[in-house]
Amino acid sequence: MKANEEGASTSLLSQVNSPSDLRKLQLEQLPQLCEEIREFIISNLSVNPGHFASSMGAVDLIVALHYVFNTPDDHLVWDVGHQAYAHKILTGRKDSFSSLRTLGGISGFPTPLESESDTFIAGHAGNSISAALGMAIADKSTPGHENRKTVAIVGDASISGGLAFEGLNNASNHPNNLLIILNDNDMSIDNNVGALHSYLSDLTTSAGYNRIRNKMAGFFRKKGILTESRKRAIIRFSNSVKSLVSKKQNIFEGLNIRYFGPMDGHDVVKLVKVLRDIKDMEGPRLLHVCTVKGKGYKPAEENPTTWHAPGKFNPDTGERLSKPSKDDAPLWQDVFGQTLVELAKSDRSVTGITAGMLSGTSIGKLFKEMPDRAFDVGISEGHAVTFAGGLAAGGKKPFVAIYSSFLQRSYDNIIHDVAIQGLPVTFCIDRAGIVGEDGVTHHGLFDLAYLNCIPGMSIASPADEETLRNLMHTALSFNAPLAIRYPRGKATTPHWKTPMRDIEKGKGRQVLESGNAKTAILTLGPSLHDALKAARALKNEGIEVDVYDMIWMKPLDSEILRKAASAYSTVITVEDGSVIGGFGSTIANILNDNNKNVKVINLGVPDKWVGHGSVSQLKEICGYDTAAIVDAVKKESSKSASL
Amino acid sequence: MKANEEGASTSLLSQVNSPSDLRKLQLEQLPQLCEEIREFIISNLSVNPGHFASSMGAVDLIVALHYVFNTPDDHLVWDVGHQAYAHKILTGRKDSFSSLRTLGGISGFPTPLESESDTFIAGHAGNSISAALGMAIADKSTPGHENRKTVAIVGDASISGGLAFEGLNNASNHPNNLLIILNDNDMSIDNNVGALHSYLSDLTTSAGYNRIRNKMAGFFRKKGILTESRKRAIIRFSNSVKSLVSKKQNIFEGLNIRYFGPMDGHDVVKLVKVLRDIKDMEGPRLLHVCTVKGKGYKPAEENPTTWHAPGKFNPDTGERLSKPSKDDAPLWQDVFGQTLVELAKSDRSVTGITAGMLSGTSIGKLFKEMPDRAFDVGISEGHAVTFAGGLAAGGKKPFVAIYSSFLQRSYDNIIHDVAIQGLPVTFCIDRAGIVGEDGVTHHGLFDLAYLNCIPGMSIASPADEETLRNLMHTALSFNAPLAIRYPRGKATTPHWKTPMRDIEKGKGRQVLESGNAKTAILTLGPSLHDALKAARALKNEGIEVDVYDMIWMKPLDSEILRKAASAYSTVITVEDGSVIGGFGSTIANILNDNNKNVKVINLGVPDKWVGHGSVSQLKEICGYDTAAIVDAVKKESSKSASL
Repeated sequence: MKANEEGASTSLLSQVNSPSDLRKLQLEQLPQLCEEIREFIISNLSVNPGHFASSMGAVDLIVALHYVFNTPDDHLVWDVGHQAYAHKILTGRKDSFSSLRTLGGISGFPTPLESESDTFIAGHAGNSISAALGMAIADKSTPGHENRKTVAIVGDASISGGLAFEGLNNASNHPNNLLIILNDNDMSIDNNVGALHSYLSDLTTSAGYNRIRNKMAGFFRKKGILTESRKRAIIRFSNSVKSLVSKKQNIFEGLNIRYFGPMDGHDVVKLVKVLRDIKDMEGPRLLHVCTVKGKGYKPAEENPTTWHAPGKFNPDTGERLSKPSKDDAPLWQDVFGQTLVELAKSDRSVTGITAGMLSGTSIGKLFKEMPDRAFDVGISEGHAVTFAGGLAAGGKKPFVAIYSSFLQRSYDNIIHDVAIQGLPVTFCIDRAGIVGEDGVTHHGLFDLAYLNCIPGMSIASPADEETLRNLMHTALSFNAPLAIRYPRGKATTPHWKTPMRDIEKGKGRQVLESGNAKTAILTLGPSLHDALKAARALKNEGIEVDVYDMIWMKPLDSEILRKAASAYSTVITVEDGSVIGGFGSTIANILNDNNKNVKVINLGVPDKWVGHGSVSQLKEICGYDTAAIVDAVKKESSKSASL
Repeated sequence: MKANEEGASTSLLSQVNSPSDLRKLQLEQLPQLCEEIREFIISNLSVNPGHFASSMGAVDLIVALHYVFNTPDDHLVWDVGHQAYAHKILTGRKDSFSSLRTLGGISGFPTPLESESDTFIAGHAGNSISAALGMAIADKSTPGHENRKTVAIVGDASISGGLAFEGLNNASNHPNNLLIILNDNDMSIDNNVGALHSYLSDLTTSAGYNRIRNKMAGFFRKKGILTESRKRAIIRFSNSVKSLVSKKQNIFEGLNIRYFGPMDGHDVVKLVKVLRDIKDMEGPRLLHVCTVKGKGYKPAEENPTTWHAPGKFNPDTGERLSKPSKDDAPLWQDVFGQTLVELAKSDRSVTGITAGMLSGTSIGKLFKEMPDRAFDVGISEGHAVTFAGGLAAGGKKPFVAIYSSFLQRSYDNIIHDVAIQGLPVTFCIDRAGIVGEDGVTHHGLFDLAYLNCIPGMSIASPADEETLRNLMHTALSFNAPLAIRYPRGKATTPHWKTPMRDIEKGKGRQVLESGNAKTAILTLGPSLHDALKAARALKNEGIEVDVYDMIWMKPLDSEILRKAASAYSTVITVEDGSVIGGFGSTIANILNDNNKNVKVINLGVPDKWVGHGSVSQLKEICGYDTAAIVDAVKKESSKSASL
């Protein structure tokens, strides 16, 4: 590694603990600093995994931005902040960087809760332009803040989403000096899609373009005739020239945003010069910067999708250390992806849709086998669902795979474009529940609550692979919207390729029958396994419980609920999601509606934001892991014993 | 009126009951048919109110579309379908048109539940491109449907939203023949905003442009050298020519969508000819059509905002018949709008934001008085909320006014861009609850459920103007997100301009104390008045009830709940929203958690879609009007009496 060759004595990074330290360096020292930051990222992430490739690609840009702008007084607003590790390292979090994404450590994404340098949250793509515009406009009318600069740094995948477009469309409405940096690495986590992407790929400007424009402006200025309308005319004219030269139209200039670039995003010295040139210009501007994902680490440059979040690796060889073994249970997403391929083979109407998550949702498996039956619409969750509604209206059976927290973006589309019409769209909600290290912006905690109130929506969650496959099979004959939620990570068994069959809507199952238990545990999804472990532990202490896997949250199994209300003194519900408006509270309502004296205890995520850490740590904190179930049962048992 | 001049004998409309009837007419008869349709709309809407101006503007376009395309086999997909009355009239609903927007009558928006000619639902703006794209792609691979045409008709306001952009950005990704008609009337309900809008206003093409392109293509075709790549080169070259000519870039062509227009949207004969020309072209295309809102009815042409939905009017004079009187209570929206102006005058950090609803939310009042403090971002609900988050991060106190059902589009923005950071954004949720005649797509039934699960969110709903004003005043010192929901329509008193004061968070009030009532009614928002009416009716029958106005849904008043659990045998909750996950079910959970034997009955909107009709009709159907409250109390009273 370079680190050894260079030796510690030349270390610049050790002198830099804040942006003002950075700004003391000479311009020509910046390339070395960038190299040192890359080495720091490599050595850290090789042992404590994180988002690697995009962070490596943005190092030079981040150094240039902090060098040119007066951060943190000037605002940098990140978009999908996993590109921003170098920003964290430069803004006082170098020493805590080894705690990245761990419980109590620093977050994997920028967050104002952690540092004043993180001006806005940046977990979901495409929000930076809108947020930065708000901040820039606020500064304009705040005494003492008028000269602050605001810079939004947005990736080429993020900018293709509707929210970013809405931001761009509004950027020129009100006086502001927003600078948008388009960090174009020619891909999202998966390859990028959409017309805007191919547009960006083709976009080139003549070297002389800005020179000509400046010369013309200079000429008019000298003559004292550079009026506002003439300035606009010059811009318009030169855009047309540029358009001819580039053989493409400039979308950004069409939206009244001055466009600069594209330029090499790894030439830190030139970046500094260009940023200095455009820093003080008036009005919204966009600088198009081209970067390479994984830049500076060959294995990542060659295979950026794999190296998006590679897990632990050997920094010298690039060998990834966390390889799956054949005895492992599959990932939930892979069970979904493989099953979708099987269903698509048997039913010509099956189609798969995702929003920028071909590999993350494993819908890539269908894309590989039947590319005309799988649609990756880019980071456009709203369109994904409405498009699926259109496919369903056209007689198809669309399966939409989107992470739970991102599906929040499709909420109106689910209601308006699918559910009101009762269209048979199946929502395969990946990353439902606590997701672990990605933290607060990525947990999928609200889907049960926000879907449950939608009339005609069915909601199910499998505890195991077989049930997931059967639910997906059942979706084929379902003539209404259906949501199937499953978590991030590993499922339960390596032997999961069971034959599929339809299962009955709204029908749960009793998994453990103890004979004369006074307590029933009702679970939704893989929480079943925590309940079964708890039951075993309780049995060792002489306490019997019955366990039910409800499978369906909507409709709930009324037979099981009737039995629960009559046969038990305590019912404990367990779910991997917000208890407010969720599975347990709905059950509590129904049981109490029956006016029974059964005590209902809801375990799940309480009404608080949940940070980052391992899934098991966070479940423990939230109080719905095995130990928490055991505790809840024991507490009630002792109460009823003492009565 | 023209109808009298022409005489009934020449009526073409009487011969047209379906699109195939229409297609039997001669091309030169179409202008007369358009005139008759306009007269039909005028005479109907003057007595049975509806969306007037946009429907008048789209008549010629609708006639041309049904004349050229083989509807309903070919698909027309509407966007914000209140432009589509002529479509309803031409597709079998002429005779039921007088029942428009009334209970049991036809819907004000296209809906597949009503007619096979309504291919997709069209209540929320911007969904048509995505839905039509899904339908077009589905048809391509469905035996027998390969040659079906799909046309999306989208307004210039709708197309500025993120969802429409996502649709455009994906339109060229997969083989399809989608035709997009941009019906450009230069305004949404209010004046249109955003860069895209000014872009559309400026867009013109040289008359000779398409001729040149066609000539070049013809030349190459004759030589037998019109390869696919050469065809693209021609398109690219001629776009650049067009760009020079039009002095603007073409955004649509930048997104790989062929652009035609703009053309006069009221020349029905020319529309037919152009549509015939482009009907069978391959690939996604966009035809830009310019129309005038209210076309054919002078008062509406001159004042399209007023005539968006004018209420009853005298067709001969244009006099609007439903004028507010000074003794009327104000509209809720006006109380909000006026109060916001007052707050803005006293606090420099107050700003107002809406998404295309300046007059609908009455935020126009602030815009009028302080144009730099009010932001209408167009139909971009997601951006509105994230932008407000940015303003709040910059130290402002933003009030975001969006209708409840449209706020569903901002769900992720509320969670990710506001609530996680705890930013002090106040959501003023207009049209919350049953809205009446606009029907299923416009009722605001889910906000309580979808907001309640968000940690750190406070939710309140005023029963009267004074409380709304006090809640808004309280928001100024609130350092966290706050949602204030209020319904469509009139508030309670003409004397509402009370001085403002802060009110305590999470504190309700007892409004009626009867002494020894066994039943408590807990209400949220204006349902209080139904409860008080019910209490009076019950008192006449000798049944006493206590009534509480909870004001806050989150946090709930724990003191009132403690009292409710101990002092009453029955608690009835009333809310203007979905009972699932709403106010009542949350209260039921808490009361039952206290393990009390109190019977809790939740009145509100059940788990079913609610159609259109008057608010009072729909409340009766849903079972939470005064009579339903009386019934519920009596039923429980008789039960406990018989025990």
